[in-house]
Amino acid sequence: MPEYLGYIGGVLTTCCYVPQIIRVFRMKSAREISLLFTLMLLVGVVVWLSYGILLSLGPVILWNAIALVIIAVLLYAKLKYGR
Amino acid sequence: MPEYLGYIGGVLTTCCYVPQIIRVFRMKSAREISLLFTLMLLVGVVVWLSYGILLSLGPVILWNAIALVIIAVLLYAKLKYGR
Repeated sequence: MPEYLGYIGGVLTTCCYVPQIIRVFRMKSAREISLLFTLMLLVGVVVWLSYGILLSLGPVILWNAIALVIIAVLLYAKLKYGR
Repeated sequence: MPEYLGYIGGVLTTCCYVPQIIRVFRMKSAREISLLFTLMLLVGVVVWLSYGILLSLGPVILWNAIALVIIAVLLYAKLKYGR
């Protein structure tokens, strides 16, 4: 049971940024998206990825590697459409 | 070393939403914030919290309990200022 929760939680907290990115690209505006939020999240995901690699934690590596790609797209959207 | 990374990663990926919330309250607008993003994140954090409680994982419980409060405020901001 807890393992399923780990997968469901991972999918939700990793993929939740996809509808946010779609919204920014549709509206062609990211003024309301905080740059500090995006940068803290990106650095945080890199730190978690390093943690997973150092401790050989498969799910931590998997979710954070996927999150890294997604958040990088969000940062691109912020830099393109923000301000 | 990896333990420090876990704390740094946890602080960053939990507290990154604070500047986002401050930005929404300052701009008094949350149109660009995706409601689906906010809801997926909230449900995801609740699932991670249940996972932590079931497996008695202290840091997982701690970070997700803090995140739950923060994301609830983000949802409030979205419902107040969005659309």
